[in-house]
Amino acid sequence: MHLVVDGYDGDQKKMWDTELVRLFLETYPSQLGMTPICAPVVLDYNGPKSEDAGVSGFVVIAESHISIHTFPYHNHVNIDIFSCKAFDTQLALKEVKELFDLNQIKSLELERGLEYLHPEVGIKGTEVVD
Amino acid sequence: MHLVVDGYDGDQKKMWDTELVRLFLETYPSQLGMTPICAPVVLDYNGPKSEDAGVSGFVVIAESHISIHTFPYHNHVNIDIFSCKAFDTQLALKEVKELFDLNQIKSLELERGLEYLHPEVGIKGTEVVD
Repeated sequence: MHLVVDGYDGDQKKMWDTELVRLFLETYPSQLGMTPICAPVVLDYNGPKSEDAGVSGFVVIAESHISIHTFPYHNHVNIDIFSCKAFDTQLALKEVKELFDLNQIKSLELERGLEYLHPEVGIKGTEVVD
Repeated sequence: MHLVVDGYDGDQKKMWDTELVRLFLETYPSQLGMTPICAPVVLDYNGPKSEDAGVSGFVVIAESHISIHTFPYHNHVNIDIFSCKAFDTQLALKEVKELFDLNQIKSLELERGLEYLHPEVGIKGTEVVD
């Protein structure tokens, strides 16, 4: 299952905090019953458009991944939690919401991966009600 | 834009090739006008379920990412191309298809990121016709 999350209106200080993102990527997979296969990679981004600066983090779990991209100046985050196995999406959303104190999140569950290996059907998305 | 791609029925030898995946992640972003902000990370995965073994790779690009997970025993790949900027999705799909000689791909375009910062609307997905 691939849970796609866009979050808004949170704690911008936390969105700048690379260590917070790193710690989250170290501890979050096991909370969801997932197995990381590398240490998280966490980077500051500060490119030509200064208002798009923020933090990016990524961890590979057993044949899938969790990624975080923050945009503190826009008070916005993009998070993907993608696992071959089913996981508790409500718990995943709760943890993500708390991480950045997000007041609003939009999310979508995509059926992908090995649990859904039907090439004759398109990728199906289901909106998650928060 | 976030292009979600599930591919089937390709060259399984290529799906085992970590160097092919690494080279692709080094060259693909610039072909799509994207800027990598780290070197690609590419890993072999060989966990408790041996039939799920394969290669995982990702590269962080300016505030977004490209990820690849291959499942050679299932003749299946999951690829995500996620960028804050719009990019040529048809070119992206063509390159991905060629990478693993995929005979069938399913894809979905998600409106996310800074180009689509409207918290009042859910994440919208549009199926891409190949």
